[in-house]
Amino acid sequence: MNILVLQGANMVALGKRQPELYGTTTAVELDSLLQDEAERLGAALDIRYTNIQGDAIDWIYQADGAGVEGLLFNPAGFLYAGYALRDCLKAVSFPRVEVHMTNIDSRGMHSVTAEAVDGMITGLGVHSYIHGLRALVQLIDASS
Amino acid sequence: MNILVLQGANMVALGKRQPELYGTTTAVELDSLLQDEAERLGAALDIRYTNIQGDAIDWIYQADGAGVEGLLFNPAGFLYAGYALRDCLKAVSFPRVEVHMTNIDSRGMHSVTAEAVDGMITGLGVHSYIHGLRALVQLIDASS
Amino acid sequence: MNILVLQGANMVALGKRQPELYGTTTAVELDSLLQDEAERLGAALDIRYTNIQGDAIDWIYQADGAGVEGLLFNPAGFLYAGYALRDCLKAVSFPRVEVHMTNIDSRGMHSVTAEAVDGMITGLGVHSYIHGLRALVQLIDASS
Amino acid sequence: MNILVLQGANMVALGKRQPELYGTTTAVELDSLLQDEAERLGAALDIRYTNIQGDAIDWIYQADGAGVEGLLFNPAGFLYAGYALRDCLKAVSFPRVEVHMTNIDSRGMHSVTAEAVDGMITGLGVHSYIHGLRALVQLIDASS
Amino acid sequence: MNILVLQGANMVALGKRQPELYGTTTAVELDSLLQDEAERLGAALDIRYTNIQGDAIDWIYQADGAGVEGLLFNPAGFLYAGYALRDCLKAVSFPRVEVHMTNIDSRGMHSVTAEAVDGMITGLGVHSYIHGLRALVQLIDASS
Amino acid sequence: MNILVLQGANMVALGKRQPELYGTTTAVELDSLLQDEAERLGAALDIRYTNIQGDAIDWIYQADGAGVEGLLFNPAGFLYAGYALRDCLKAVSFPRVEVHMTNIDSRGMHSVTAEAVDGMITGLGVHSYIHGLRALVQLIDASS
Amino acid sequence: MNILVLQGANMVALGKRQPELYGTTTAVELDSLLQDEAERLGAALDIRYTNIQGDAIDWIYQADGAGVEGLLFNPAGFLYAGYALRDCLKAVSFPRVEVHMTNIDSRGMHSVTAEAVDGMITGLGVHSYIHGLRALVQLIDASS
Amino acid sequence: MNILVLQGANMVALGKRQPELYGTTTAVELDSLLQDEAERLGAALDIRYTNIQGDAIDWIYQADGAGVEGLLFNPAGFLYAGYALRDCLKAVSFPRVEVHMTNIDSRGMHSVTAEAVDGMITGLGVHSYIHGLRALVQLIDASS
Amino acid sequence: MNILVLQGANMVALGKRQPELYGTTTAVELDSLLQDEAERLGAALDIRYTNIQGDAIDWIYQADGAGVEGLLFNPAGFLYAGYALRDCLKAVSFPRVEVHMTNIDSRGMHSVTAEAVDGMITGLGVHSYIHGLRALVQLIDASS
Amino acid sequence: MNILVLQGANMVALGKRQPELYGTTTAVELDSLLQDEAERLGAALDIRYTNIQGDAIDWIYQADGAGVEGLLFNPAGFLYAGYALRDCLKAVSFPRVEVHMTNIDSRGMHSVTAEAVDGMITGLGVHSYIHGLRALVQLIDASS
Amino acid sequence: MNILVLQGANMVALGKRQPELYGTTTAVELDSLLQDEAERLGAALDIRYTNIQGDAIDWIYQADGAGVEGLLFNPAGFLYAGYALRDCLKAVSFPRVEVHMTNIDSRGMHSVTAEAVDGMITGLGVHSYIHGLRALVQLIDASS
Amino acid sequence: MNILVLQGANMVALGKRQPELYGTTTAVELDSLLQDEAERLGAALDIRYTNIQGDAIDWIYQADGAGVEGLLFNPAGFLYAGYALRDCLKAVSFPRVEVHMTNIDSRGMHSVTAEAVDGMITGLGVHSYIHGLRALVQLIDASS
Repeated sequence: MNILVLQGANMVALGKRQPELYGTTTAVELDSLLQDEAERLGAALDIRYTNIQGDAIDWIYQADGAGVEGLLFNPAGFLYAGYALRDCLKAVSFPRVEVHMTNIDSRGMHSVTAEAVDGMITGLGVHSYIHGLRALVQLIDASS
Repeated sequence: MNILVLQGANMVALGKRQPELYGTTTAVELDSLLQDEAERLGAALDIRYTNIQGDAIDWIYQADGAGVEGLLFNPAGFLYAGYALRDCLKAVSFPRVEVHMTNIDSRGMHSVTAEAVDGMITGLGVHSYIHGLRALVQLIDASS
Repeated sequence: MNILVLQGANMVALGKRQPELYGTTTAVELDSLLQDEAERLGAALDIRYTNIQGDAIDWIYQADGAGVEGLLFNPAGFLYAGYALRDCLKAVSFPRVEVHMTNIDSRGMHSVTAEAVDGMITGLGVHSYIHGLRALVQLIDASS
Repeated sequence: MNILVLQGANMVALGKRQPELYGTTTAVELDSLLQDEAERLGAALDIRYTNIQGDAIDWIYQADGAGVEGLLFNPAGFLYAGYALRDCLKAVSFPRVEVHMTNIDSRGMHSVTAEAVDGMITGLGVHSYIHGLRALVQLIDASS
Repeated sequence: MNILVLQGANMVALGKRQPELYGTTTAVELDSLLQDEAERLGAALDIRYTNIQGDAIDWIYQADGAGVEGLLFNPAGFLYAGYALRDCLKAVSFPRVEVHMTNIDSRGMHSVTAEAVDGMITGLGVHSYIHGLRALVQLIDASS
Repeated sequence: MNILVLQGANMVALGKRQPELYGTTTAVELDSLLQDEAERLGAALDIRYTNIQGDAIDWIYQADGAGVEGLLFNPAGFLYAGYALRDCLKAVSFPRVEVHMTNIDSRGMHSVTAEAVDGMITGLGVHSYIHGLRALVQLIDASS
Repeated sequence: MNILVLQGANMVALGKRQPELYGTTTAVELDSLLQDEAERLGAALDIRYTNIQGDAIDWIYQADGAGVEGLLFNPAGFLYAGYALRDCLKAVSFPRVEVHMTNIDSRGMHSVTAEAVDGMITGLGVHSYIHGLRALVQLIDASS
Repeated sequence: MNILVLQGANMVALGKRQPELYGTTTAVELDSLLQDEAERLGAALDIRYTNIQGDAIDWIYQADGAGVEGLLFNPAGFLYAGYALRDCLKAVSFPRVEVHMTNIDSRGMHSVTAEAVDGMITGLGVHSYIHGLRALVQLIDASS
Repeated sequence: MNILVLQGANMVALGKRQPELYGTTTAVELDSLLQDEAERLGAALDIRYTNIQGDAIDWIYQADGAGVEGLLFNPAGFLYAGYALRDCLKAVSFPRVEVHMTNIDSRGMHSVTAEAVDGMITGLGVHSYIHGLRALVQLIDASS
Repeated sequence: MNILVLQGANMVALGKRQPELYGTTTAVELDSLLQDEAERLGAALDIRYTNIQGDAIDWIYQADGAGVEGLLFNPAGFLYAGYALRDCLKAVSFPRVEVHMTNIDSRGMHSVTAEAVDGMITGLGVHSYIHGLRALVQLIDASS
Repeated sequence: MNILVLQGANMVALGKRQPELYGTTTAVELDSLLQDEAERLGAALDIRYTNIQGDAIDWIYQADGAGVEGLLFNPAGFLYAGYALRDCLKAVSFPRVEVHMTNIDSRGMHSVTAEAVDGMITGLGVHSYIHGLRALVQLIDASS
Repeated sequence: MNILVLQGANMVALGKRQPELYGTTTAVELDSLLQDEAERLGAALDIRYTNIQGDAIDWIYQADGAGVEGLLFNPAGFLYAGYALRDCLKAVSFPRVEVHMTNIDSRGMHSVTAEAVDGMITGLGVHSYIHGLRALVQLIDASS
């Protein structure tokens, strides 16, 4: 089971950027946590970071054409104006789960990509990713 | 570990109401699924349904005074105007996880209670509750 | 033919409350007028008043499960924020007619439940109920 | 008892236009239904169709000066921007009942003329007209 | 000096319509007052009433092609949605003065045609027309 | 002099809920302060708490029919969507004073019931109630 | 192949009205250009101008009943409030192409009829009509 | 007949300030034109300029207490936020005419004081004042 | 105990201005009532009226530098656009109580200064001042 | 005649993405259709696809410096937030035609780049490109 | 080189007012810093403080008539509703630089006068003034 | 002292693009001016241009990790939707100064990144950069 994990704008600075909001787990440490969980779930992860919305779109279309079966992603800085990314998400056929480390509602934020996913998990820190990965694997299993 | 599970307005009709949106699992069946999962997690659930927002507020304050350690809830019909419920959620000290069976973002809906919870899970059908329960137990463990 | 008649928030004060708007016919007198008309139409009415939105929702689901064939209702004070009631109305299968004694448009008011009914009649005082009852019976006949 | 019946923009195409919304009863058939009902009620109808808002205004002022005792009308396409028609309705002295075949609230529409009528009936298909005619006759009787 | 005087929607009912707002001077009496004043000013008036916006547009283009030197008009019921009339006013070359009998600002109204005229006079009852006619003649004199 | 004192949604938790906003005086202590002041003023208080808006409406109509001469109330959690309560307040004949412990303006909040009262006092903590009670007694004296 | 060409409010003044926006080609010259192109395409044009929205609606319904196979039109002054015209366009079955001589987007304008057509062409001056006619003929060919 | 003439913020710079909008007639020259016209009309003018809104309010209350019979004024820079001035205008008993030299509607401006006057004249340059003075004298005559 | 009492725009006309709203008590009489009450409370009042917002700001800063211990004020006409006054209120250290004679909520008004005070009292006529003075003295006592 | 053809975000997936909206013609097939038409028109096309808005801006500036004479483009996913692209379009000197395959108006969408082009063609599927290319060639001819 | 330096509402309290925002440099100290810098730049400063918007307008017109060559100003409390001041700034011919000590964008504030200046500098504390003075001198030099 | 200078979307075309707004100084010439000034100030500049928002974000994070001590930047085309860039700016620790060549306020524009910088300078053409560089060096000196 191949899964694409996409980390949106500013996620590369995880652990260093505003730790009072996002905690001190770094991007490298998060990747390791996700790979461990994926192994337990029998999934292979391709984890990618980008600050360029168009890169994310490119990778999603490539994944759709390369047998990837699901997408776990955090739009992060793309949540404000990621309309092109949203349309891309509507165009692919595999399940999509969006995650946010913080409770975006309590911060007065709204994700424009959220309407184009199957499910969303917010507010649980790095656990948002772990729960999101498990939910995605379940969706893939259910749809196959 | 005592957990209050609150089902908001119209959830009593689960399984019969708009099954194209909410599926055919009934309220009774969902309760059973949740009790099974709670047993696995070592938690005891007090599951309650109400169409009256003030009842939900009453029960949350009673739980806060009776040693309950966490709240899993679906505001359902209270998501539109549940401002009093939101203020109640801000007043209690235990962890709170909100769940929605559908992707409320893709339906153009916004939950006014969401800003007063720790985390939120949407769009995964009855699995939103299962993932939500696991996340809540994790939050309770982390805060104790 | 069993019909539920629901009177929303503040209707219990009919005849005493702002008679320059709502007239001097009391709730008891209106009930009598409706029962007489129902008898003529061969229908049995269960007339209920409540100031609690959740009560109205409870009764509608109970009616749906108890063979009631139609709903005549005035949301009254629920017209402003009766979103949960609206979702309930969308969930039941029998015909629904909403009535208002005054012309709510000329008062700058909008009923949030109106989008979930079959038909609406406004501005005709107590006759809004009589015409509404006749229209409801016609809808029940047409759908059976 | 002389009554003016006005059919606003696009009503001339009734029966052919979007039958999934407006049904298959044609304008001619509706006129016949209304004339039959009027006969039963002892009223004479002058039924007119127009796609020009100013024509409707002309006819209403002429009716006001010619002994007409009531107006039954469907603004139809004038409901969006019929502000001049609305002011005309406020200027005449006889009762006015507005009807719509569909539930305009569930279609996200609002009638700008509605604030200038006595009563409104929506959502009952051609029966909106029949109920509207009866309500108008009752209003005329009550005001004479 | 030829001047077109245009009376918009509902002005035909002047004197009978809402006299508490518009007074009891009738359209015929107002015309007479204007003709008398025009004679004093050495101007010939062509006074026209219409409830149809397109008629007003037709007449203005005809006037522009027939040597008319100025326009005095009350958009009346066209003030709400007279956008096409506004564009017409921008297209002609002679001076244009808009008048309103009432103070439209104190009634919460805004005229969409007002941006396309030279000057506007409001709130002075029938005197708005007299002052408007004098101002128009002055503008014509100044521009010739 | 009989006075109804109504405490809206979440007031039951006074003293425990967000003490940085509402202080540490409990509901029981506040009741005692109010009863003492009432005794000094020669008034008898019926103090009630509810989280259900419809309960508040019920009690106000009952009070209106039972010789109560004034209402002191804090809408609290009902200030956001208490439209039905507002209409109830407009329907009763005795004086009404609304109080808030905090300065709701500085918190960006607006009370929808405020337009239906005689006077309002905000920002003075528990003293808002004491001043409110005195003002209410004065209003009752003035209206009798 | 019979095609109706409709010119909306103010188009009759083409060539004289604001030539810095609309150029100096007159209505008569534009008609001639269109007839020449129609001849090349094997189509017969019925070209009509009106400043009255209701006339446009009348003609479209007549065309629909008289074998006309397509509509080329410029709403012009009807683009602001042509809601009734928009509903008419939704009611007919033949292809519809809307044209504008100027780039309405750069002028901050929006056409309310545009949502009810097959295609739209803007900003190309009189060539908008020529391209529009060709596109319409292609649509008619494709749908037959 | 004593009349107060008030010139609001920035009017002191008349003739020098943005002459493409306001012309080259200076404040002194305008005063002279007004005094000449007042003499013809049998009125005495007290003309005052201020850039301070509170000064205008002071003077209006003083005039009201000193037998002044009418107010001619241009709010000028106070038209944006002159709410206190507006309330003052509502408090005095003599007629009030507001003037603007330019067509404020075509400049996208709205005067907040306009709702508190009897009549308004815009767009006629210095003639707005002359016509305004005449209209005011007429109003004073009519009200005496 | 020195207290500054500030009366904002239009308060100087109290008793003469719109008595149906503000009553017939004059400014002089109100001052006398306040001085009597102050004497009872052991406070010395410096009562000032101004129609100029900047004067109010000047006096508040002077008071802050001259040992004044509290401010009682009615922004009156400054409630609409008194943003500079609001910032001034935030800058001083002594308690501030705002009063309004009418219920500004029922008049659709909002005070921009209200967010910068300790407490506010509305709707009680001249008693708003008396209650406000008592509340202010209590706040000064509590903060000393 | 050198022309740049730009395909914005998500166009690379043409033919596979939401074919119910965009049809089944692939990007490669569309390119071939365009090259054939260009050959007929005597134009050379440089067709480029990108999901990155900045790439589009880079290419347009490069084209402007390399003798390209016109731009045909579909902003696609850039239509929502392509403000930087819009400013770029305003900065170049050659003609620009924007195309959309669907009727964006009927989908409730608005293109932010549209205000910076010469003309726009929407709703005609792949024919939007063909008509757009012809219109662009015509504009280039006219401007040379 | 004569320069007017204007300090708007509340600036007189600099150093004492909200030092966490504005620092502890007093108005007198800031004046001294500015005079020193002016001396270095060969400019003479006339520094004025006012809480009255009309005073600022008076002084600017006086400066314009008295050979002043530039204006450095901080609207401070006038930034919210300084529309009359803005119009005054548009009326004078010398360069104008606006400064703010704090980053008004990060505080959610917008200056209404900013559209009427040459340049603006924000967020640099007292250095905003120093940089602003240098920029102003440069502008004066460039324009002479 | 190492400083990153970032030029946002469309700045690469400086000198050629809309010179009536941005002048004729080219990007190369501006770089030279900045390098000269930097030399005088003892700073080393790394000047970069990009039309891709994500590139700007990449470079800022790289700079933050490579000892860069300050950022001078013009968001240019990113000012409309540069939300991800704004979040990046909030994440880095060195001082940030934003510059604009034109007065964006007078053009009705607002920079979304402005809330995340220390200071901003607008409207001074290329001098905005020079003043900005000086202010940035001062900020770096002050923070070290």
